[in-house]
Amino acid sequence: MSPAHTEQRQFPVLEDCLQLGGITLTRLAERVGRTPFYAYEREHIQSRIALLRSTLPPELQLHYAIKANPMPALVQMMGSLVDGFDVASGGELKTALDAGMPPSHISFAGPGKTSSELRCAIAAGVLLHLESEEEMARAARIGEQMGLTPRVAVRVNPEFELKYAGMKMAGGARQFGVDAERVPAMLRKLGALGLDFQGFHLFCGAQNLSSRAICEAQRLCVELGLRLAAHAPAPLRVLNIGGGFGVPYFPGERALDLPAVADGLHETMLGLTAESPQTRLVLELGRYLVAESGVYVCRVLERKVSHGQVFVITDGGMHHHLAASGNFGQVIRKNYPVAIGNRMQAGPREIATVVGPLCTPLDTLADSMELARAEPGDFVVVFQSGAYGLTASPTAFLSHPLPLEVLV
Amino acid sequence: MSPAHTEQRQFPVLEDCLQLGGITLTRLAERVGRTPFYAYEREHIQSRIALLRSTLPPELQLHYAIKANPMPALVQMMGSLVDGFDVASGGELKTALDAGMPPSHISFAGPGKTSSELRCAIAAGVLLHLESEEEMARAARIGEQMGLTPRVAVRVNPEFELKYAGMKMAGGARQFGVDAERVPAMLRKLGALGLDFQGFHLFCGAQNLSSRAICEAQRLCVELGLRLAAHAPAPLRVLNIGGGFGVPYFPGERALDLPAVADGLHETMLGLTAESPQTRLVLELGRYLVAESGVYVCRVLERKVSHGQVFVITDGGMHHHLAASGNFGQVIRKNYPVAIGNRMQAGPREIATVVGPLCTPLDTLADSMELARAEPGDFVVVFQSGAYGLTASPTAFLSHPLPLEVLV
Repeated sequence: MSPAHTEQRQFPVLEDCLQLGGITLTRLAERVGRTPFYAYEREHIQSRIALLRSTLPPELQLHYAIKANPMPALVQMMGSLVDGFDVASGGELKTALDAGMPPSHISFAGPGKTSSELRCAIAAGVLLHLESEEEMARAARIGEQMGLTPRVAVRVNPEFELKYAGMKMAGGARQFGVDAERVPAMLRKLGALGLDFQGFHLFCGAQNLSSRAICEAQRLCVELGLRLAAHAPAPLRVLNIGGGFGVPYFPGERALDLPAVADGLHETMLGLTAESPQTRLVLELGRYLVAESGVYVCRVLERKVSHGQVFVITDGGMHHHLAASGNFGQVIRKNYPVAIGNRMQAGPREIATVVGPLCTPLDTLADSMELARAEPGDFVVVFQSGAYGLTASPTAFLSHPLPLEVLV
Repeated sequence: MSPAHTEQRQFPVLEDCLQLGGITLTRLAERVGRTPFYAYEREHIQSRIALLRSTLPPELQLHYAIKANPMPALVQMMGSLVDGFDVASGGELKTALDAGMPPSHISFAGPGKTSSELRCAIAAGVLLHLESEEEMARAARIGEQMGLTPRVAVRVNPEFELKYAGMKMAGGARQFGVDAERVPAMLRKLGALGLDFQGFHLFCGAQNLSSRAICEAQRLCVELGLRLAAHAPAPLRVLNIGGGFGVPYFPGERALDLPAVADGLHETMLGLTAESPQTRLVLELGRYLVAESGVYVCRVLERKVSHGQVFVITDGGMHHHLAASGNFGQVIRKNYPVAIGNRMQAGPREIATVVGPLCTPLDTLADSMELARAEPGDFVVVFQSGAYGLTASPTAFLSHPLPLEVLV
């Protein structure tokens, strides 16, 4: 038997129809007023964070990485659930501040910050994650011009890499952070420049489903952070060890073993507290907090049979959900979990290919997948779509209207 | 020696600086007011179309496929250079009509037209390329409701496929068009429904660099169109044989042999005229008309060395130019032609990796490429960027500002 998707059980089904935020999908579609749309469920995000709070060490600071989903209403809600935000651009910084998060709980990372972004961040008083010596020099110059002392952490590119990560971001030559061996010299300059040193940021990679690899990387990150702190001009107040917790997208993938990750973090936290009790450990999660709370919904326009193959043609597609089409950093296209949202259990099933309205064969949401037999007017639901969905998609491609987003 | 890019000689160089539309890049960047931006050169588009006009059969109708680049100023200019537009959405239809193209010279193709798009198209009086029997039935119903007779062509999914196409769109099971064997039955219904039959649309695939494959596909398309016309309720007025002319993007690719394609088209045209003198042959080009006229320009923020590898960090990247980052339908990432636009010939050279500001290793514009040694403030130029650039990119990714577009 070929591998299957993990079962999507996060939303209840009532009378064969998916429910999101307690509303049946057919009614939600009427409320939204048009298809396609993204829907993110408050309840799921709240439960996920409550689960993390009850499982992970209580002293751990939990940050939300806005890049995963910057929808303002969602970020606003998140503000009351997490301890801080991480932003990756001037635009995200604005979203974070608008949501009412105190600047001291916001950090700004990213390898290509413009001088204008550095000015905004220094004016706001957020923590700058310095990605290079050159960026440090620019921040110092700007701070001097403004009469402000930038609060900074150094992003370190460690020697080790995160095994099994969907996307590796450390180990070897990287555009991210400063090679670990060069950090001590940089810290000397940092002290001489009079910057307000807060700590380190170490982020090894994203979308990891191996608890063992995550625990090992976290342990190594804390060890390296403590070692480098010996060279710092001020005590280590913050150690941001990134996140990288994955969610299962594709057939054969299984959910992260959170209790195992928690065990590792408890141990790591013990070691840190023993050696450096004043250091706050920050875990920065994006995808893991929101991906599974969200669905992308589009409507079936027609059924079509070509050479015996069934095509379900919808009003949504790759331009709204590039990742589900298999064109966002994937080498081999695999199906996201997809269902007919108003035919969840009953009725006949068939093998069908779900495509969108675009004039390109790339515009495929599900390739030869077993689905309920869909009719025009039905709803195609793509699960695991709460992170890197809309904002990671080429929405202007072929000049179709933007999809809507709702938080329910 | 490893394969090289075709030389980019479409723009002159003055004092080591690229010129676009007769303006040096450094001055153009000041005029635009900020980086990154896309620039498309009028002169290049005009010359390309003049070349096609002088080479291809004079009776051939040349259409522009707006999806390649829907920038309004560019579409407006194109309106006076080509014989018609092809649109792929209601949004593109609006752009086409705003540009002043007569509705009778606009055709609308795409496998997932909504009923609202069909209404707009029928109200406008453009030619509908019917992609299925179901769409034909919907168009007939809507026409009846509106008291208008829809002008229609049938998009055919031929049995043969386009060899060497970058993207195959015919042959076997497809979401595009109607399987050839089912077309005769559909034409009988079409006549009974009282639709205004104009002809056929056959499009086999995009981005093809083989003149032989293109000629063969065009010949087969015309043969099939003439064969199917025997079943039509009215004379064959239009035969749209698509386009699919490729441009060289990657090392080792060579420009299409246009004279060879022209020879084939002259012959195909002779055959068509002999058999069906009232039929207009339409060639629909998008990429080939605009891709080489355009560049994407971003600015170097800093140089960074990690483990001996040079990274040139810019303010532009994957969020503006997904195709150049290698994430738009490419299986193996390859470099687009890239240069430092203000250091075109002189100065030292080095192997460098050009990246953008995003927190993802996917954000790479050139991977380990030989380039002039770039300094902060320099301009990175990505050539071959006039088609499927901005609109094919996830511009909201990480909430950076939109790039600008200029026609010079």
